[in-house]
This record gives sequence, C-alpha cells and structure tokens, in this order.
Amino acid sequence: MDRKTTSRPGGRSARVQEAVHAAVRELDAELGREKLTVPLVAARAGVTPSTIYRRWGDLQALLSDIAVERLRPDSPPDDRGSLLADLRTWAEQFLDEMSSAPGRAYLRDALVGDPAGNAMRCSDYAADQIDVILRRAAERGERTVGTETVLDRVVAPIVYRVLCRPGPLAPGYAEGLVDDLLGN
Amino acid sequence: MDRKTTSRPGGRSARVQEAVHAAVRELDAELGREKLTVPLVAARAGVTPSTIYRRWGDLQALLSDIAVERLRPDSPPDDRGSLLADLRTWAEQFLDEMSSAPGRAYLRDALVGDPAGNAMRCSDYAADQIDVILRRAAERGERTVGTETVLDRVVAPIVYRVLCRPGPLAPGYAEGLVDDLLGN
Repeated sequence: MDRKTTSRPGGRSARVQEAVHAAVRELDAELGREKLTVPLVAARAGVTPSTIYRRWGDLQALLSDIAVERLRPDSPPDDRGSLLADLRTWAEQFLDEMSSAPGRAYLRDALVGDPAGNAMRCSDYAADQIDVILRRAAERGERTVGTETVLDRVVAPIVYRVLCRPGPLAPGYAEGLVDDLLGN
Repeated sequence: MDRKTTSRPGGRSARVQEAVHAAVRELDAELGREKLTVPLVAARAGVTPSTIYRRWGDLQALLSDIAVERLRPDSPPDDRGSLLADLRTWAEQFLDEMSSAPGRAYLRDALVGDPAGNAMRCSDYAADQIDVILRRAAERGERTVGTETVLDRVVAPIVYRVLCRPGPLAPGYAEGLVDDLLGN
C-alpha cells in the first residue's frame, strides 16, 4: 500500500525522509506550493533528485506523503467522561483541522498523490481515533454505535463539506452531527 | 467561480471548448491519462498551446473542467411515485456512477483542478437533483427533509467512501442510507 514510503526508523532511509520532508516544509513556507520542484527540494535536502524520484516517484507523491504525515493525529482523543462529550470534542477538532487552509491542502494532496493508499491511511487515522472513543464508552458501560456508522454520520459530512461544498457552516455543525447520531 | 470556462454557446469559444474536450477524450482513450500534455492536446484539437494555457491555465484545470462536464447529470431523476423510491433509486445510481473507475477519476480531477469552483459545481449538481426529488415529494403531500440533510446523510457517505475509504460496500449500502434517513 505505501510501497515506497516505509522506512526503518533511525536508518539512512529515515534520515533521507526527514531531510526531504523538512526541505518541502521550508520551501513551501518560503516560496509557496506552486514554486516547488524536485530539483529545488533535493538541493535543500542535500540529496540528489534521483533519490527523490526513486523513492517517491514524483513531486505529487512526495507532497501526498507529507500530507498524510501531517494528518496523522499525535495523541489519542481527549477523554471527557462520556461518549457524547468525547465524540463532540473530537468532531469539533476534526472539523477545525480539516477546514483550515493547511488542512484542506493536505487533504487534497493526500487524495491526489496515491489515491488508494494515502487516502485510505487518512480514513484509517479517523477510524482509529473513533475506535478508541467507542472502546472507552463500552468500558464505561455506555450504549455505543459502530465505527463505520460514525464514519458515515460524522466524518463523511465533514470531509464532504470541506472538499466539495466549501462555505460557512452553522455554528455547532460538527457537534450537531454527533447529537443527531446519538439521539440527543 | 468558473472564470475561464464560461462560453457563449455556438460562438468560437464554444467550438474551441468542444474541440479541446474531444481531443482530451480521444487522447485519454488512446494513450492514457499520464501521457497527456498540453501541446499534444492542442495539436489534436487544431489550436495553439497558448489558446489552452490562456483559457484553462494548465492541463489539470482542463481535466477538471472536463470531469465536471461528465459529472453533470443529463436528465432529471426518475419519478418512482414516492420520496423513498425516488431517493433510493437516485442514491443507487449516484453510488454506481461515482464508484466506477471513470467516476472516481472524474471526481478526483474535479477536486484537484479548481477546488472551490469545480467541486462546488459537482456538489450543486447533486443538490439540484435532490431538490427535484424533494419538491416532487412535497407536491405529493409527503413529509420531506431538507436538501442539506440529504447531502449529509446520503451523498457525503457515498463520496467519502469512494474518495477516502475504497473497498467493497455491503449490497444495498446506498439504499440503506436513504432508509435510515427516512426512518424506514
């Protein structure tokens, strides 16, 4: 699935990945997305362009890889003591992240570079976070729903509106999706 | 919104658009998507590359434009006599189209080329079709729901699964979304 992007932590492969990712982030900030080229990135990272082509294929695949990296949550979802509170908090944060300018750009990059693999990984990140929330609820003895149902009812509308139907959302939109689902 | 792509029907602009769209479709079929270039398309369409750059900006924007064209429904949704039947039929067809290989490719192209404009147009196509179905239901005296609710509950999960979570869907998935929404 992520054929070219796996790396052994700490090895040369990981160091190259880190240097290249950092070079993209720096050049993106300095010059803007449209000015990025593989030779520019290679020069900044101190590797040859062919290292990048061999490993990622092309610039779009590299951007996609970085996007997925940034979309990966770095901590488990907050525990607020109830399924309703946990899911509301998570949905609100997810909407905030996805609808921010970088969030939109990452989401689009992830979808374009390596459709099957990367988009799937993003969806898995969301599913993993939801699993944690639902498991906690089950341990508390709360009545829960299935992860796929939460993806359909909460995650999908948020992603759809960010990607396909931009525009102002009503305040509390994300929480409303959760309330509807849980029947509150 | 669609700044460069508007054309007066029948004029030179419309003829150029038609020739360029046809050239892309032919070359896509003959050579495959990855081999397409603006000079190739221009040569086949009998225009100069600068005509294409001036009008569309770049190849990705041109592909996006064509994708939106293909995603536009060419007839109003079937009238099956009830809101439930109309929406089930429409949702099933929408899932079929979006999850086909060309559907996925068009959807992705539409999202990438001109995010705000084109993706919005795709979303508007779906919203327009749903409006027709809901208006018919209201005329029959049926209790209806809002268009945005149908987008969240039926369209969003389908698009999300096509783009971000590919994989086999349970038979009747689309109809199930409609049934859940309408409480059947």
